[in-house]
Amino acid sequence: MISSHLPDFLLPFGFQFAAVKAGLKPSGKIDFAVAVADHGASAAAMFTSNRVVAAPLIVGREHLRASGGQVKVVAVNAGNANCATGEAGISTCRDVCRQVAATFGCEEAQVFPSSTGIIGVPLPAEKLIAALPDARAALGRTSAHFDQFAHAILTTDTRRKVSARDFSTAEGKHVKIVGTCKGAGMIHPQLVPHATMLAYIFTDAAIAPSELKALLNDAVELSFNRISIDGDTSTNDTVLLLASGASGVAIDAGDIDFREALEAVCTDLAKQIVADGEGITHVVELQIEGAPNDSNALRIAKAIAHSPLVKTAWAGNDPNWGRILAAIGYSGVAIDPAQVNIWFGDHEICRNGGRSPEFDKQTAHRYVSHPEFLVRVDLGIGAGTCRFWTCDLTKDYVAINADYST
Amino acid sequence: MISSHLPDFLLPFGFQFAAVKAGLKPSGKIDFAVAVADHGASAAAMFTSNRVVAAPLIVGREHLRASGGQVKVVAVNAGNANCATGEAGISTCRDVCRQVAATFGCEEAQVFPSSTGIIGVPLPAEKLIAALPDARAALGRTSAHFDQFAHAILTTDTRRKVSARDFSTAEGKHVKIVGTCKGAGMIHPQLVPHATMLAYIFTDAAIAPSELKALLNDAVELSFNRISIDGDTSTNDTVLLLASGASGVAIDAGDIDFREALEAVCTDLAKQIVADGEGITHVVELQIEGAPNDSNALRIAKAIAHSPLVKTAWAGNDPNWGRILAAIGYSGVAIDPAQVNIWFGDHEICRNGGRSPEFDKQTAHRYVSHPEFLVRVDLGIGAGTCRFWTCDLTKDYVAINADYST
Repeated sequence: MISSHLPDFLLPFGFQFAAVKAGLKPSGKIDFAVAVADHGASAAAMFTSNRVVAAPLIVGREHLRASGGQVKVVAVNAGNANCATGEAGISTCRDVCRQVAATFGCEEAQVFPSSTGIIGVPLPAEKLIAALPDARAALGRTSAHFDQFAHAILTTDTRRKVSARDFSTAEGKHVKIVGTCKGAGMIHPQLVPHATMLAYIFTDAAIAPSELKALLNDAVELSFNRISIDGDTSTNDTVLLLASGASGVAIDAGDIDFREALEAVCTDLAKQIVADGEGITHVVELQIEGAPNDSNALRIAKAIAHSPLVKTAWAGNDPNWGRILAAIGYSGVAIDPAQVNIWFGDHEICRNGGRSPEFDKQTAHRYVSHPEFLVRVDLGIGAGTCRFWTCDLTKDYVAINADYST
Repeated sequence: MISSHLPDFLLPFGFQFAAVKAGLKPSGKIDFAVAVADHGASAAAMFTSNRVVAAPLIVGREHLRASGGQVKVVAVNAGNANCATGEAGISTCRDVCRQVAATFGCEEAQVFPSSTGIIGVPLPAEKLIAALPDARAALGRTSAHFDQFAHAILTTDTRRKVSARDFSTAEGKHVKIVGTCKGAGMIHPQLVPHATMLAYIFTDAAIAPSELKALLNDAVELSFNRISIDGDTSTNDTVLLLASGASGVAIDAGDIDFREALEAVCTDLAKQIVADGEGITHVVELQIEGAPNDSNALRIAKAIAHSPLVKTAWAGNDPNWGRILAAIGYSGVAIDPAQVNIWFGDHEICRNGGRSPEFDKQTAHRYVSHPEFLVRVDLGIGAGTCRFWTCDLTKDYVAINADYST
């Protein structure tokens, strides 16, 4: 099930959540969130492929290595990305982690830090440290507490993003997965800066860190790595998966029920990010077929998803397929224009690289006026396919990002 | 010298120009231009690297091959790109060329066709053919005639783009080069659709086609292939260089005076395209230094030039350098963030990957408020460099391209 109003019974056992105001967001809203695993949790994480990496990602990766993939506390602030802050930024991040460990009674290496917000400005660690007693006092295991966590991590997002799945084993045991994420601009995750994507997924399954990593890799590749709002890959992108084991159900990387549930949560969250993209008015699903191989299909999808001319046409409800064909043409994939067919939904727009005899401008215009629509491209060469989600480029996107102060 | 009001004495000998209304532009403005070489001209051309290629590019390439690089008439229409029009589009293009050849008295293979405008709509050849007698009657060799040519090829451009250079040989002979081009959107030439870049350069030097090709390749690589407005590479991009030989000066590919003059004309025209970019308010020169090699420097420049977040910050006069650093980080070049320095003009903004101690937000804001400014990046790794010209991304760009009808 998908819900942004999560019933308590869908929260995985073994975790508590809290969020407080540390004073980093100019709006004065809650901006510091913690998740605490009662008895620790197995952890797997994926990070941005950007060569410029924020301090908390450097420290978080180091902690996971030192702890053997064990996390006790996740501590996330919004309002400051602690990126391009040099050695001082890393030192500040360590200061926060040390105090988090002291507050919640664990090793420093069991703290997983995250930051999101403005780049290049020193992180005011003292504000986060001062808020820790309040955060500890606010901990709880209800969906209201989880909602607070999901709210506190937001920046330019307009709403929180939550997804949950559960399944039962043949023995009648119950496993739950819940995730939350943030991100609305600088969104082209290559889990691998400013508004960033952060995703936190919690489960009460019992999974070893190495198995968890394999499961996360596969799910992320088909979800978070298949979306783009603006093509800008952030310095802070992080996806963290924690497994408390509190359900008593042992899962390994081959478990189909778990794989499907995890992929469903990740895909759902990824699509929620696109749907909350800065200034967007259309969510567009791209289905590429007939490519020489899957990676070429992905390359085609990205060329379409990153074309300002394609995206502005969508903003104007304009069924302009020539711009899509042009983007396919410069993608770098060895296509044959005479083999290319394009559909808007079920409506054939382009056949063999030219205007389809079935193209009707009014029908096509009405279809691309919907808030969500599908663009299907068949390259007619091979068996490569890809699904990808993106959005339009509007004047509001420009306004949001031209007016955002350094 | 640079001028958009070209004195007659800078027009190369051996060419006549004309432009007329064929009725392809909805505005009713002149939209069909011809240039005629009195006794033919040596020709070299470069075309888009887009795999989707407009019909006139296919026919033009074929004609150059068949004629051994000899052109008598250039015939350019604006208002329809004759792209994604299939076999019918090629056949239509041939129909026009055949009538052009009959009108001006030359072989069909000596006609070089170009089209720019909307993609995917059949070209109304009959309108162009009907306008040919008027075009022939309008021919002349004054700068007013050349201006008409430069005007007729425009689409979303707001002004014509002209550049000229001349030099004298040691023997006191005089060589002239004049060029004109169009383009304001879908501009990321990789000479190799809708609003496209077309450039026509004329000289009265005597140059063999093979030498001409080498000269053109070198000049284009440092000019038209070093600009981007929106990162969309068109299906119709064409640069054509014609040499009439009427000056009586023989030039080969090693001639420094000619190389410099040609590169100056190409760079000047390329920068005029950026300055007339759709909706832009800032022209930005990027100077990349210290890259592992020149091609990596170019890759860094393109990552910056194509980042919507960098471009929208510029639109807001926002001296946001974190977004530039992020773009450098995801460019794919193996940079070391701790070695990166960035300047806005002479003002150091980022030192060793963090905020420079010299950074002053007000000073930086005032600098990036200018209509033209310089961003210099030193990667601190190697000796690779690159100059590149780009622009900001504004609400007007979105409006222009969201409201443009298919």
